[in-house]
Amino acid sequence: MMRITKEEAASMLLSMDNILIFAHENPDGDAVGSACALCHGLISLGKKAAVWLDGIPANDVHLTKGIMFDNSFTPEHIVSTDTADKRILGAGCGFDKSVSVELVIDHHFTNTMYAENTYLDEESAAAGEVVYDLLLEMGVTITKEMAECMYIAISTDTGCFRFGNTKARTLRTAAALLDCGIDAGEINRIQFETKTKEYVALEKMAMNSLKTYFDGKCAVIMLTLDMFRESGALESETQALSSLPRQIEGVYVGVTMKEKEEGFFRISVRTNAPADASEIASHLSGGGHPMAAGCAFVGNKDDALRAVLEHTENQLKKAGLL
Amino acid sequence: MMRITKEEAASMLLSMDNILIFAHENPDGDAVGSACALCHGLISLGKKAAVWLDGIPANDVHLTKGIMFDNSFTPEHIVSTDTADKRILGAGCGFDKSVSVELVIDHHFTNTMYAENTYLDEESAAAGEVVYDLLLEMGVTITKEMAECMYIAISTDTGCFRFGNTKARTLRTAAALLDCGIDAGEINRIQFETKTKEYVALEKMAMNSLKTYFDGKCAVIMLTLDMFRESGALESETQALSSLPRQIEGVYVGVTMKEKEEGFFRISVRTNAPADASEIASHLSGGGHPMAAGCAFVGNKDDALRAVLEHTENQLKKAGLL
Repeated sequence: MMRITKEEAASMLLSMDNILIFAHENPDGDAVGSACALCHGLISLGKKAAVWLDGIPANDVHLTKGIMFDNSFTPEHIVSTDTADKRILGAGCGFDKSVSVELVIDHHFTNTMYAENTYLDEESAAAGEVVYDLLLEMGVTITKEMAECMYIAISTDTGCFRFGNTKARTLRTAAALLDCGIDAGEINRIQFETKTKEYVALEKMAMNSLKTYFDGKCAVIMLTLDMFRESGALESETQALSSLPRQIEGVYVGVTMKEKEEGFFRISVRTNAPADASEIASHLSGGGHPMAAGCAFVGNKDDALRAVLEHTENQLKKAGLL
Repeated sequence: MMRITKEEAASMLLSMDNILIFAHENPDGDAVGSACALCHGLISLGKKAAVWLDGIPANDVHLTKGIMFDNSFTPEHIVSTDTADKRILGAGCGFDKSVSVELVIDHHFTNTMYAENTYLDEESAAAGEVVYDLLLEMGVTITKEMAECMYIAISTDTGCFRFGNTKARTLRTAAALLDCGIDAGEINRIQFETKTKEYVALEKMAMNSLKTYFDGKCAVIMLTLDMFRESGALESETQALSSLPRQIEGVYVGVTMKEKEEGFFRISVRTNAPADASEIASHLSGGGHPMAAGCAFVGNKDDALRAVLEHTENQLKKAGLL
């Protein structure tokens, strides 16, 4: 359980062969992109390496082409990327979460140091950015294929360079990836500018469900099982909806409630300062960051809403906003 | 009517004093940002300079603070930025469109070379990027204030680095601007992640008005005068709506129709290749680019829709999509 430097991580990887790479469960673009870029890099050095990922977003499936684990070698080393906690490790293909992870490459300051070795750069916006530095350190020539993986990783975690985690260094790394010949405009069109018909139908229902409370300082979107059924949209498509209520002028607390099963809700809380999302979520046994947090609720729709509004009201008062 | 180099433009500006800067009418972030950055740069060199801009978007007004023309000097030189055509020059404060423009700094390949001298870089994503290069050439030390102007200029014209005009160089320029100490995350939150209540109300109506045609290959949003009245939204807030219909999977032609006055429509056409927006618009006496074009229509709602659908159908057939 040791924290190691980039140089140490690079020399460790250079000494490995037969490497299996996991990322976190329900992988997003950064999980898929960082794992696949690392895998391609290792293969380019003549090593046997593969990724194993489950539930990949449709737009990212192509990144795993040719490198998904297919039992063509016996894994000797387990590496993970973008995974802060063992409990969310997306293990599989004969391994489970109890597997010993030899090296994790991550950017989450919340990393629990579960791996034997942790190479962590909290200053990076995405695990894909950490992998980029590591590949260069290992002497890998960045191919267009690797560049696309890391571009998707970084653009996913920065909201395509919108969020505050986008540093000058992030933009320079992205520039270097563009230099490798990727068509970033087309990648972005697919990743950020394309919605399925089913999602559009759900988004319409979500907009119609939007209600504001506390003099417009809180906005709530409620997505019921019926809405998912009627629209045909998948829950994995609905991430962008979480940021919608907070975008409304004057809103400090934006809440998106998703009914996952009868009587079970996943609740996303997004705030603008000085309101603190993690405080609201923690009162409902959840957690997260000051501006983005989440929790679950067991009960009916009205009770779920009442609970959220109660803690939102307290938070607005505490922050001097009510 | 001469096209000049960056070096010539720099030495021309260095020899000027008492400079008034215009941009295009209905200025967007690039128009405001490029004009203001240039103005701040000239002032930093000890010159008298000011901008004159009308109808500035609310989010960009602060960029003009302290540099709006106030008759404190008599303009001797007229410079424009981001303005491709004399007919859209946002002249004012005692000047009109017939004014002689001594130098235009632009990035539109459609620039009509109306100015005595044109410094044009069609490879730049934004006029703000051209101004950045020019300020460096002039030896200006980029301040945080100038950096914010140019960041807003560039992020506006690239959809915050999403669009295909975002090159590696664009990202490196943005990185250099972040190095000047601007809070890009907060700027982006205000520019791209904030919607007025009125806009949200209109967006809801727009979503509900969305209809698809030709087997889902065309999607149309209709914004009527009644919707503007009922929501209270301003037409200047509705730019983002134009890209919405095209975002739906399977849509090649996305149309947004805005009723500006009783019986008068502004029509935006956005396409995915191989459909060509400019061909559709040109049949209705409009024009634009292959992926984004516009036109006007005089008549009632049904006739406007019928006309658009007729030319859309022809275009879809021509492109082999129907």
